Amino acid sequence: MTQDFRRAPLAELAHHDAFIGRHIGPDASETSAMLQALSVGSINELIEKTVPGKIRLQEPLALEPAKSEVEALAELKAIAGKNKLYKSFIGMGYYDTHVPHVILRNVLENPGWYTAYTPYQPEIAQGRLEGLLNFQQMIIDLTGMDLANASMLDEGTAAAEAMAMCKRQNKKNRSDAFFVAADTHPQTIAVIKTRAEHFGFEVVIDEAEKLADTECFAALLQYPGTTGQVRDLTDIIATAHEQKKLVTVASDLLALMLLKSPGEMGADVVIGTNQRFGVPMGFGGPHAAFFGFKDAFKRSAPGRIIGVSVDSRGKTALRMAMQTREQHIRREKANSNICTSQVLLAVMSVFYAIYHGPDGLTRIAERVARLTDTVATALKKHGFDLRHEQYFDTLCVKVGRDAQRGFYQSALGNEINLRLVGDDCLGISLDETTTFKHISQLLNVFCAGDHGLDLHELDAELASGNLPHGLPDVQRRTDAVLTHPVFNSYHSETDMLRYLKRLEAKDIALNHSMIPLGSCTMKLNATAEMIPVTWPEFGKLHPFAPIDQAQGYSQLFTELQQMLEACTGYDAVSLQPNAGSQGEYAGLVAIKKYFEHNGEADRDICLIPASAHGTNPASAQMVGMKVVVVNCDAKGNVDLADLNTKITEYGRRIACIMVTYPSTHGVFEEGITELCAAVHNIGGQVYIDGANMNALVGVAAPGKFGGDVSHLNLHKTFCIPHGGGGPGMGPIGVAEHLKPFLPAHPVQPVPNTDTANGTISAAPWGSASILPISWMYIKMMGQTGMLEATQKAILNANYVAKKLGDHYPILYKGSEGFVAHECLLDLRPLKDASGITEEDIAKRLMDFGFHAPTMSFPVAGTLMIEPTESESQPELDRFCEAMLTIRKEIAQIESGDVSYDTSALHNAPHTQDDVMQADWDRPYTREQASRPAAWLKEHKVWPSVNRIDNVYGDRNLVCSCPTVEEYRS
Amino acid sequence: MTQDFRRAPLAELAHHDAFIGRHIGPDASETSAMLQALSVGSINELIEKTVPGKIRLQEPLALEPAKSEVEALAELKAIAGKNKLYKSFIGMGYYDTHVPHVILRNVLENPGWYTAYTPYQPEIAQGRLEGLLNFQQMIIDLTGMDLANASMLDEGTAAAEAMAMCKRQNKKNRSDAFFVAADTHPQTIAVIKTRAEHFGFEVVIDEAEKLADTECFAALLQYPGTTGQVRDLTDIIATAHEQKKLVTVASDLLALMLLKSPGEMGADVVIGTNQRFGVPMGFGGPHAAFFGFKDAFKRSAPGRIIGVSVDSRGKTALRMAMQTREQHIRREKANSNICTSQVLLAVMSVFYAIYHGPDGLTRIAERVARLTDTVATALKKHGFDLRHEQYFDTLCVKVGRDAQRGFYQSALGNEINLRLVGDDCLGISLDETTTFKHISQLLNVFCAGDHGLDLHELDAELASGNLPHGLPDVQRRTDAVLTHPVFNSYHSETDMLRYLKRLEAKDIALNHSMIPLGSCTMKLNATAEMIPVTWPEFGKLHPFAPIDQAQGYSQLFTELQQMLEACTGYDAVSLQPNAGSQGEYAGLVAIKKYFEHNGEADRDICLIPASAHGTNPASAQMVGMKVVVVNCDAKGNVDLADLNTKITEYGRRIACIMVTYPSTHGVFEEGITELCAAVHNIGGQVYIDGANMNALVGVAAPGKFGGDVSHLNLHKTFCIPHGGGGPGMGPIGVAEHLKPFLPAHPVQPVPNTDTANGTISAAPWGSASILPISWMYIKMMGQTGMLEATQKAILNANYVAKKLGDHYPILYKGSEGFVAHECLLDLRPLKDASGITEEDIAKRLMDFGFHAPTMSFPVAGTLMIEPTESESQPELDRFCEAMLTIRKEIAQIESGDVSYDTSALHNAPHTQDDVMQADWDRPYTREQASRPAAWLKEHKVWPSVNRIDNVYGDRNLVCSCPTVEEYRS
Repeated sequence: MTQDFRRAPLAELAHHDAFIGRHIGPDASETSAMLQALSVGSINELIEKTVPGKIRLQEPLALEPAKSEVEALAELKAIAGKNKLYKSFIGMGYYDTHVPHVILRNVLENPGWYTAYTPYQPEIAQGRLEGLLNFQQMIIDLTGMDLANASMLDEGTAAAEAMAMCKRQNKKNRSDAFFVAADTHPQTIAVIKTRAEHFGFEVVIDEAEKLADTECFAALLQYPGTTGQVRDLTDIIATAHEQKKLVTVASDLLALMLLKSPGEMGADVVIGTNQRFGVPMGFGGPHAAFFGFKDAFKRSAPGRIIGVSVDSRGKTALRMAMQTREQHIRREKANSNICTSQVLLAVMSVFYAIYHGPDGLTRIAERVARLTDTVATALKKHGFDLRHEQYFDTLCVKVGRDAQRGFYQSALGNEINLRLVGDDCLGISLDETTTFKHISQLLNVFCAGDHGLDLHELDAELASGNLPHGLPDVQRRTDAVLTHPVFNSYHSETDMLRYLKRLEAKDIALNHSMIPLGSCTMKLNATAEMIPVTWPEFGKLHPFAPIDQAQGYSQLFTELQQMLEACTGYDAVSLQPNAGSQGEYAGLVAIKKYFEHNGEADRDICLIPASAHGTNPASAQMVGMKVVVVNCDAKGNVDLADLNTKITEYGRRIACIMVTYPSTHGVFEEGITELCAAVHNIGGQVYIDGANMNALVGVAAPGKFGGDVSHLNLHKTFCIPHGGGGPGMGPIGVAEHLKPFLPAHPVQPVPNTDTANGTISAAPWGSASILPISWMYIKMMGQTGMLEATQKAILNANYVAKKLGDHYPILYKGSEGFVAHECLLDLRPLKDASGITEEDIAKRLMDFGFHAPTMSFPVAGTLMIEPTESESQPELDRFCEAMLTIRKEIAQIESGDVSYDTSALHNAPHTQDDVMQADWDRPYTREQASRPAAWLKEHKVWPSVNRIDNVYGDRNLVCSCPTVEEYRS
Repeated sequence: MTQDFRRAPLAELAHHDAFIGRHIGPDASETSAMLQALSVGSINELIEKTVPGKIRLQEPLALEPAKSEVEALAELKAIAGKNKLYKSFIGMGYYDTHVPHVILRNVLENPGWYTAYTPYQPEIAQGRLEGLLNFQQMIIDLTGMDLANASMLDEGTAAAEAMAMCKRQNKKNRSDAFFVAADTHPQTIAVIKTRAEHFGFEVVIDEAEKLADTECFAALLQYPGTTGQVRDLTDIIATAHEQKKLVTVASDLLALMLLKSPGEMGADVVIGTNQRFGVPMGFGGPHAAFFGFKDAFKRSAPGRIIGVSVDSRGKTALRMAMQTREQHIRREKANSNICTSQVLLAVMSVFYAIYHGPDGLTRIAERVARLTDTVATALKKHGFDLRHEQYFDTLCVKVGRDAQRGFYQSALGNEINLRLVGDDCLGISLDETTTFKHISQLLNVFCAGDHGLDLHELDAELASGNLPHGLPDVQRRTDAVLTHPVFNSYHSETDMLRYLKRLEAKDIALNHSMIPLGSCTMKLNATAEMIPVTWPEFGKLHPFAPIDQAQGYSQLFTELQQMLEACTGYDAVSLQPNAGSQGEYAGLVAIKKYFEHNGEADRDICLIPASAHGTNPASAQMVGMKVVVVNCDAKGNVDLADLNTKITEYGRRIACIMVTYPSTHGVFEEGITELCAAVHNIGGQVYIDGANMNALVGVAAPGKFGGDVSHLNLHKTFCIPHGGGGPGMGPIGVAEHLKPFLPAHPVQPVPNTDTANGTISAAPWGSASILPISWMYIKMMGQTGMLEATQKAILNANYVAKKLGDHYPILYKGSEGFVAHECLLDLRPLKDASGITEEDIAKRLMDFGFHAPTMSFPVAGTLMIEPTESESQPELDRFCEAMLTIRKEIAQIESGDVSYDTSALHNAPHTQDDVMQADWDRPYTREQASRPAAWLKEHKVWPSVNRIDNVYGDRNLVCSCPTVEEYRS
């Protein structure tokens, strides 16, 4: 108790910066205890001994003082209020939708779901893996494909990845041209064109009928077309196949409830977005895109694929299949650079389908179709012509050049957004939220304020069958979809709630325990940061709404950009890339464009240190650069001698170096400024991977110590939750000279960008609706809090390194013996001595209730621990206790007291099936198996399956839901 | 898939009534399967065979058609928008507060917390029991008392209960007078006066100094006083004690962070509200009140008390202590009729304290005190006089008669609410949400629009110590409070989130499985119903704000009253009683007032059937009526012959009969109309307990078949969640002739009421902010849905009775062999044969993941099962499978194959401690112990302790938090 509070200035009592203490785990007394353990006198001393002096910032961050949660929320609410929520008839892949409230509250707003990590440790992730498998089943059903992946970033990216996959797959066809039907969404075309440009493909855009006459390796057709046309593609696809062309179809899930599937029409790949299945528009994202494909393509498919396998007891168990395709293993030979996908949104969309069931979804689709018929019929009665007579939910009204703008403006006057199609048509797209009242208001726009029709009468007329309908019988699908029990069991809220809870209960997320994932920065995603995400002011805005309706978003973007510039030292930030991988791609594109502009288009080499993230080389490959690896020295630093050798060797062919700082080895390399200078000297650019920004903010700025461009993982340093494997956000910061080369958008202009730069994401500002999270975070932490977060992240990592270092060698340390914000435990000596693997330790940690650290990255045989600033000392101690107990178990194997095969380590994780077993013949007790630490008596999260057999699953790939019988067996 | 959707009218496709299918478990195919199992052809036939024809409604309910979730929410949002959120300086026990967001989302908005039941089954309720124990510890600490209960309904009720307890306790003093200090909140005085009137106590209201001169058995003093005065009560209390008077102090938790505690001043009881500890004002409630008392009073204390005991392994375990005090056991001899308390709000308030910790709470209190000093100083500089020079957060400004209204109106013009005190003063109360900006605006009101002061300068002056402060040193508390580790461990959001999750994970709530509690109607609490509860438009309104600022609430009340009138057949509804018990009390008060008005004040007998809820006789006792029990016949029906005997015997002394319909025996008694007529014939009133309204709505209406008054448990039939043991709402419906006798309010006028009727709750409309739940429910179900809910509730109960009836005798059935919405399993024959008890079955059900049905009510040795309409057939089947498996286990004991002592039943529930045990010497396997059904392999909720020893805990009463060491041992 303060005895002298009356003498304190009120400002101190006000405690505007209270959030800093909420975000950061260690309080003052823990901090001093930890500093003492490290034998350093102060946090500043620790930073001085950790971060090279020559890069340390001398000035405080150019950020405002911290605001309280309430203050920041009030400020953001006022900003959000500047957005105007007009009724959208724009369509183009974005539709208003009703998020079922039970899903809204219990998934999207529930830390049990949104704070989970990507399911790399499947034994404690069966809940969301089941969600994702359901998702794949839904996509397989609706698209009519053999297989589907577990989501893509957005529809544009999915289309571009389909193009790339078709190229990989279609070796027989040597063409470098890719055909895109003209009635494809313009943002999809833009993303494809950008990607094609860097792959060296030519994009041919023409009417679908022209495909047969076009030389190309593959095509993208859209169904229904962007202006609404529904037509049978069977013949076009058959001809293409005869011509050895592959065909991707972009489609719409709600339409596919009623329409013949692309699979039935012969498509090779089917892509699209799940947004309208219960995911808010959010001014462009995040949403999940889908990617269905033929079985033959499975080894060249991009993204994550969930597969069915078995555990060590032979029980059905799910995990990510065929990871060998992915960038973290294959690096520049990967199918794609994609890392983050959209798990949270993918599971939301399939939960929407599960909750409605096939009948409910059909009813929603039918209602939309009928309302569209009503609008079409009414318009025709008023003398309007439609471009297409066959449609599902979208009409293209031929209003003529003179009238187009007038109707459009009149709609705006009535708070209605239409789509401008060409210069003489207007697009109208309906969705599940459209009501009779909406269409009456809409018709009034076209009828000088009074459409004069009795819509109920019109409806009765339509019901009588005497009027034509937009959806022809011949085009209706006849196969049963979503027949799996999971889609037919949870239609009451009680049943749905319990299903969601059962899934959630299988997973470990941050609401249970620390997730010490090196490089992934699993820190607090504060509730106050999450609250604005589900405000309708942010959720219900169409990304292509006129920008004057999005003044709230515009202000949010500007302020966030300024704050990120302050944090990074860059001169400009683009918010378009919606994942770290996309940020890398966007950054490299900017570098390429810069060199092209400067007449140095022949710079084609990207230097990448051996320690880099797998996404780096995969991204370099995407922009057609050649990867040259720079060695690391014995201390884990980039080998500057080798760098100089490479520079000498490749000279002006070098476009850039991609380097992570502090390094993925967990140290602040002293040579970073030298490295930057060396590359700059020969005219190259320095790409600093922002994955480790959590060790930098406020302490050093990549834009100041030599970086030309960096991407920021907002889902790491800036508190966007990982969502169980997405969403993420990967904006890039650039130095002044790269500013003219930031990505643009073809539909919604992005200020200060040139469409010639290309387009990275389907939406202009990526996943706009989660940006409030980072905005809130920075506002609530403020100038001092952002720095303190970095300091405490470094403190926590060093504390863990100190406690574990005597038992597990710390592979790399800085010159003064300290690590950065993460540390690498070298397990190789132990492996040699005992036979245990990093996987054994990872699985054994599950028995303690912990998610494993990052395994074997960036060095095989290691564990990388990143505690983040949000973990308090007791939690760090708990984790270290687990690791030290494990170390003793390893010692028992080393000494020969316990054999590896019978050890708790090798048999980990332990399940209820294990401890229920009547016969127990192991050299350790049940208690030691499942409750090897005291706190587990208080709170135990059980792995729901035993160790999973990955190889079995990859050999017997099953990516759809097993039957109930299969589960039973 | 509908093949002919184009022929369907759009209205059908629109599916406005979709919510009905979300709320009700069984779908069409399940319904027909269940009807078939019952050998009835239709749901109507079932109802005809269940509900006596003479009471069945012939008309549909006078309700609108169902609205969709989105439509109903939009309608309610528009209504909510009519509330105006002015800055409140009113005080009087209601203060604006910041609900910590981590608590808002993860407790108040989390079904894991709000759908739980009262912790009668403690082995699966240790989470919220720990929360409540923390609550008691907090109250003990802050009040300085020996013990505290686990919350009361509101401050007024707590004060009235304190009065009653003091009377019970103070046998030495024969006075019937109760003294109340004049500076007590007026609503507290009103509730006390009403209660006292019916107890036959005289209430003396005077200045606290006059207590010594007043003959009385006890007194209530308020500290700080309602107008803000802080003064030492030590001497007054000491004198009272010398005079054999007991003293209750009404206090304020935030003030007690800084002020000497009432315990230190000698108080016997300390009461108050926890509202300002993170519970929204919500226009009056729900909040938790607190009740701290001396150890000597423990056997006469009202409400629930959580105590520490041990489980069968000797492990520390919590449960409700000394239940023998309570109404469900002692009936009219109970200490109080209170049943529902305010668990959800109580735990929210202690989580607020845990999250802030003692330092954080002190800082909040200090800031409020300093801001109040600032206002006081500024006002004095402007020449205003204050009534009290010693204050904490409340000032009473002497503005004079002429100016009072002018300042008050001017404040309103600036969206500021002040308190009118007398006719010449204004009250100003500050709270944690008050900012410098607010006080500047406030001062402007008093200074003709410009206070002209530099508040920062003033602040500095205050900090310098040269100005007087409101809080005198001598009155500051010096003892350390909240020193238990639980208040000093969870100050980061990460730590708090995990603590909340750990507690939640110990409990079974509706998000896991059916809670088949007879008479308690644990059904779906839909998310769409819960969403409006946390809208600021409902949460941030002071209950005494001028009514024109509460037009949204007014409309909500009116509409809800109309809908409840439609559902019950009554002519008027009062929304004031905030629990069923309070509804009973209010209904009986209305009856008494009616008779007084008619000159029949001598009617003093309340007939109560033997099957009644314990609250009925306890309530009758509260209004001074004598309880005369009417027998039940062998079929469980009220024995009409005995009724007639009693009528003959007591004649016009009979005030009323209290009867539950359908009966607590689970049948629709055929004699109900005869019963009502018999009582009416001698001029008596019929009180129909609405606990079982879930079997009536749309089928029969108590207001039509003979009831004069009923209370409705909105937390049963009308979907307010149980919150782990509150909040509830118990409005009453009355026939026309009782309408003039509904409860009133002394501060905020309730339309059409007379203050002479008295006041039941502290707030005019009880727990106003949860009324949107019932409003949403009725709106979304509409005319047909409300009926269907009743039908399906009856169907589900009959289905369960049918499946279990061959194995467990159903004690009572209607004339056609059907039960109502619940059924009683008679276990007495099994007990005789095997020695097992209903408790064994209840505990064994936990092993299956189920909460037990109601035990031994209304008949000892029975289980009462109420599945409600929200459970689907698969869940009912699962529950029946568990019960049938248990029946087989009982058979093994009956046959002698297994001894009772070693049986799984007797050893239930089984914990992880059990199955981890290395030595297993039981006649059943670990698997049979803990996973006796297949579904448990998929989802197991573990009881966190073994069976708890209630007797041990009552003999060794501990109601505060054990030390960590005690937990360990």
